[in-house]
Amino acid sequence: MAENWILVTGGSGYVGSHTIVELYKAGYKAVVIDNLVNSETESIKRVRKLVGHDFPFYSVDLLDVESLVEVFKKHKFQCVIHIAGLKAVGESVQKPLEYYKNNVGGTINLLEVMKQFNLYSMIFSSSATVYGFPQYLPIDEKHPAGSCTNPYGKTKWFIENILQDLCHSSDIWKVIILRYFNPIGAHESGTIGEDPSGIPNNLMPYIAQVGVGKNPCLSVFGQDYDTPDGTGVRDYLHIIDLADGHVKALKALKNECQTFNLGTGQGYSVLQMIKAFEKASGKTVNYKICSRRYGDVDTMYADASLAKKVLGWEAKRGLPEMCEDLWRWQVNNPQGYRTEQKM
Amino acid sequence: MAENWILVTGGSGYVGSHTIVELYKAGYKAVVIDNLVNSETESIKRVRKLVGHDFPFYSVDLLDVESLVEVFKKHKFQCVIHIAGLKAVGESVQKPLEYYKNNVGGTINLLEVMKQFNLYSMIFSSSATVYGFPQYLPIDEKHPAGSCTNPYGKTKWFIENILQDLCHSSDIWKVIILRYFNPIGAHESGTIGEDPSGIPNNLMPYIAQVGVGKNPCLSVFGQDYDTPDGTGVRDYLHIIDLADGHVKALKALKNECQTFNLGTGQGYSVLQMIKAFEKASGKTVNYKICSRRYGDVDTMYADASLAKKVLGWEAKRGLPEMCEDLWRWQVNNPQGYRTEQKM
Repeated sequence: MAENWILVTGGSGYVGSHTIVELYKAGYKAVVIDNLVNSETESIKRVRKLVGHDFPFYSVDLLDVESLVEVFKKHKFQCVIHIAGLKAVGESVQKPLEYYKNNVGGTINLLEVMKQFNLYSMIFSSSATVYGFPQYLPIDEKHPAGSCTNPYGKTKWFIENILQDLCHSSDIWKVIILRYFNPIGAHESGTIGEDPSGIPNNLMPYIAQVGVGKNPCLSVFGQDYDTPDGTGVRDYLHIIDLADGHVKALKALKNECQTFNLGTGQGYSVLQMIKAFEKASGKTVNYKICSRRYGDVDTMYADASLAKKVLGWEAKRGLPEMCEDLWRWQVNNPQGYRTEQKM
Repeated sequence: MAENWILVTGGSGYVGSHTIVELYKAGYKAVVIDNLVNSETESIKRVRKLVGHDFPFYSVDLLDVESLVEVFKKHKFQCVIHIAGLKAVGESVQKPLEYYKNNVGGTINLLEVMKQFNLYSMIFSSSATVYGFPQYLPIDEKHPAGSCTNPYGKTKWFIENILQDLCHSSDIWKVIILRYFNPIGAHESGTIGEDPSGIPNNLMPYIAQVGVGKNPCLSVFGQDYDTPDGTGVRDYLHIIDLADGHVKALKALKNECQTFNLGTGQGYSVLQMIKAFEKASGKTVNYKICSRRYGDVDTMYADASLAKKVLGWEAKRGLPEMCEDLWRWQVNNPQGYRTEQKM
């Protein structure tokens, strides 16, 4: 039976693992695939423990159509939550072909296999990066999109277009595009969380690694932005709220393509985030001011009122909770999933 | 030896076949691939006769990487002229996934195989459709692009982005993007030309089929456009001029991504084109006015001065020659390549 079974692509990564937890909390069941390029099966083990269910996991790459077909032969799904994708902005500039091939090519393969098995429902993991440089704030879904300059962001934008065009071609398709702002934090158990390889690309994992002593000093990219304290302002939301957004979206699918921002609507600067983390962790975070990173904007925060209205979703967890949960994960897993859990 | 050998993808189609002729005229040699989805091997036979060379032809689909690799193993190339792609606007709205898969996915495969064989030079067949609704005229290469609404046009835009990003990632890549306006006409021999299957999507093949009695009446889509006679105005150029643009581009490749319009700079309305064709053919073209087609714009014509300045290219053939050559092809081949040639 397809009822309540959800295929989660990229399910062993940061967003995927937390999404599975929220799916089970809401009574859904998951089949999970991931190519494990940026994640570890350890996360799957821990999620299975958290949800109390040995859900199926397959190490499958979306570029490997045959293996993907095998998964669809074994299971019937109500919907695909498509989170899989390469996600490092800087790397995407260095290796654009890999990003286009994996993200866009992988999605096309997935959509074709879905068609083949008469499955036409997808929730897609997009990003606020598609908005490019903000023309007004807060950013609602009508804000112009597609002007992002890095290949990572373009892959998200291209996939959004493909999904829009699919829904335009036939009303059999039910698609929801979720444009994430900046998910941070971790599950309250401290057993799953964000586990970047190498130097983190994102602020909060970097802060947490400095807090735990894994990195000596945080690099703050730019203090001359047009913001109250000169550092960049972003809309951080708790990963569990973000995960819950996917669950809410499942109930709101209809025969068209809908797009929603997932954010809190509240912006915090880098320095505010450092302070909030220091308060939650009791640690001091050393930082140095570096030059701006190419492509970074001053301020981004969401108008998330459409998600509230249509999905009945809103971010519930505040900044202290985000930092406390992040810290719990980091303290318990200073090396991420790569070492024994110390709890 | 790679010297002077050019791989032409989509080489049995309208643009491809004429490009091969011009390549040989300029001293180049071609290896040709095509999946024959929208074309016939008969065109290859005729091009071989025209150029006096039995150049290699392979029936290869760009989605079939193994076969593509075999071609690269057998031959060394100086450059790829990448013309292959699905090209019907209306069909792309109905079957977006096929368009994204074939055009974008096929190009990614081709670029990866090129990398594998240390070939980094490409001339890409794009389209003025990437400009979307004209914001000013004539349209130069700085005109905003990417707002086209149909999947066909988006595939061209996405591929342009991939090529730009590739050149940005490494200066080993040499790419020229050619944005075609409206190529028409045929080789003066009357042995090769445009051979659409079914009802032609483009004006001139449709007119020619009415002229030769294959279709009873031309549908003119809209007579209420903001143009002198109310019908849409486009920039038609002779297919041989367009083909010559590719040859000129070969000599202008350098370690970056360059983009050029190929057009005459002169716009003609549908009614002007009908009259020009009637004059060239001595036939009367019956037509009826229909409602506008979604997505059609009033007027489009190129500023092609950049191609003149950098490539040393300009369109040389006028409207009478375009119509006369089209008519010769049509009279000699009323059923296109599908019947015995009547010459």
